[in-house]
Amino acid sequence: MDLVLLTLDLVGTAVFAISGALAAGRKRMDIFGVVVLGCTTAMGGGTLRDVILGVRPVFWIANTQYLAIAAIAASGTFVLAQRWRLPSTLLMYADAVGLAVFTVIGFQTAFQITGLYSIGIVMGMTSGVFGGIVRDVFSGEIPLILRQEIYASASLCGATFLALLSYLQLPNAFSVWAAVFTTLFIRLAALRWNLALPLFLPHEDRDKNDS
Amino acid sequence: MDLVLLTLDLVGTAVFAISGALAAGRKRMDIFGVVVLGCTTAMGGGTLRDVILGVRPVFWIANTQYLAIAAIAASGTFVLAQRWRLPSTLLMYADAVGLAVFTVIGFQTAFQITGLYSIGIVMGMTSGVFGGIVRDVFSGEIPLILRQEIYASASLCGATFLALLSYLQLPNAFSVWAAVFTTLFIRLAALRWNLALPLFLPHEDRDKNDS
Amino acid sequence: MDLVLLTLDLVGTAVFAISGALAAGRKRMDIFGVVVLGCTTAMGGGTLRDVILGVRPVFWIANTQYLAIAAIAASGTFVLAQRWRLPSTLLMYADAVGLAVFTVIGFQTAFQITGLYSIGIVMGMTSGVFGGIVRDVFSGEIPLILRQEIYASASLCGATFLALLSYLQLPNAFSVWAAVFTTLFIRLAALRWNLALPLFLPHEDRDKNDS
Repeated sequence: MDLVLLTLDLVGTAVFAISGALAAGRKRMDIFGVVVLGCTTAMGGGTLRDVILGVRPVFWIANTQYLAIAAIAASGTFVLAQRWRLPSTLLMYADAVGLAVFTVIGFQTAFQITGLYSIGIVMGMTSGVFGGIVRDVFSGEIPLILRQEIYASASLCGATFLALLSYLQLPNAFSVWAAVFTTLFIRLAALRWNLALPLFLPHEDRDKNDS
Repeated sequence: MDLVLLTLDLVGTAVFAISGALAAGRKRMDIFGVVVLGCTTAMGGGTLRDVILGVRPVFWIANTQYLAIAAIAASGTFVLAQRWRLPSTLLMYADAVGLAVFTVIGFQTAFQITGLYSIGIVMGMTSGVFGGIVRDVFSGEIPLILRQEIYASASLCGATFLALLSYLQLPNAFSVWAAVFTTLFIRLAALRWNLALPLFLPHEDRDKNDS
Repeated sequence: MDLVLLTLDLVGTAVFAISGALAAGRKRMDIFGVVVLGCTTAMGGGTLRDVILGVRPVFWIANTQYLAIAAIAASGTFVLAQRWRLPSTLLMYADAVGLAVFTVIGFQTAFQITGLYSIGIVMGMTSGVFGGIVRDVFSGEIPLILRQEIYASASLCGATFLALLSYLQLPNAFSVWAAVFTTLFIRLAALRWNLALPLFLPHEDRDKNDS
């Protein structure tokens, strides 16, 4: 893996670990719970990616730096949050950066292995959103991906854009950064201006199953 | 994989994608969220099956038709539900068909690999119920499998019946269809007449953990 | 695998199956639902461990005794709970034994494969806590790991202690039992005296995301 991707991947790991730690903190977990949820969030998406693609050993066994960075970022968040008032939107921003970075890493890994753009896009989304889903399910929240915000769509756009740039054979470092910033921009714009896509508003009776 | 199984598998993929899309719609997700939950529901059970059995690459990487069918079925459901009033029981019926089909496919795949009836039955159930569990957990519902209805039991009966037919060495196409219709019949009968098995009614005090 | 580990593993499988069956019973599932949740709880942690480590086939396909023991323990719990009043704390105790045993088995399996203490500790925790997380998520409860009790921490201490004993090259049978009892003691002490580690009490505004 080249240096740009490795750096990005470690940054993504740290920010997702922070988002997991913040989510754990909302549930008033103790420090080890915070570290566990931080690491799970940070490495869940990539683990599912490697398991589905058959990459052996999975990335955090091959390179234990990931584990160390996730644990340090999560416990650092724990310590900092005891002392300073962290901005309440930090979870959202950390999650957005992680989403953007892991979407790109997931695309690259899957595309290098399979050579298929469609699988690259799907695995980009999987890597990007799965860690956050695990974080939200484990902490008893409705996953961000299910809220009425552009979330999976941001990941899909970023991965599709990266597929296009790869198809055009642009320099890899350029493509990677362009796709990261595209994903991040779409997600942040959606958060900032409450953008939303057309919703699913079925005509059917919802009373039956809700009761 | 022979033609009967492939056809069934694609049908199961489509109906589970529809059930995932309908569940996503209940939560008012946007179109990409609907497609993501539809694909996850459609391919979750088979992915877990392939990962546990060590099948590489997993089925939807080996054959991207599955991905295409799931995405089309989910987005088609999104479009149709905007225009027509879909029957409120459609989710239940689509889920029942998917349960029956994936139970059979799961048994066949695992039995061909391991040669063990017990593993065939367990993986049949896993394939049948896991996609629906993921759908329900991700959309914040109590999984269907946990409700007081014959659900896992229908899958278990179908898979066991198929194990028996395989043991008797009946023609494969006959066994497959017989097991699909058995599973489907048991599940639909349970829905239609509210059948239930004996419940777990422990004498223990439930107050402690519920509070 | 030597006899001590195999015995422990089967005991852990049985007690986690009991804990899954009891949790299913709280939700008034039927007997097959109880068996399914029992088996999932008993084998979820080890399955994730084997899938991540790339062990093929996974343990319960390689040795179907696990499946049989889990199914018998879960259905036995179902039958017993219909007749006798089981102590309301049984779920907690069964879970604690399973946590201790699977932490140790997870460490041993991962350490034998990778030779890394850090991966051994992480996979020990993963094996120990994942089955219980699946049980709690599937039955719609907040995972035990998230409650304000020493849970992940007990597993972490036990795994770290075992890493230390392995490093010191003490006899394996001694190390294994010492680590099991250490984990179990910490967990039971935490339950008995309501011990807790420092909590995460961030200064940030929690209103925004809770609303």
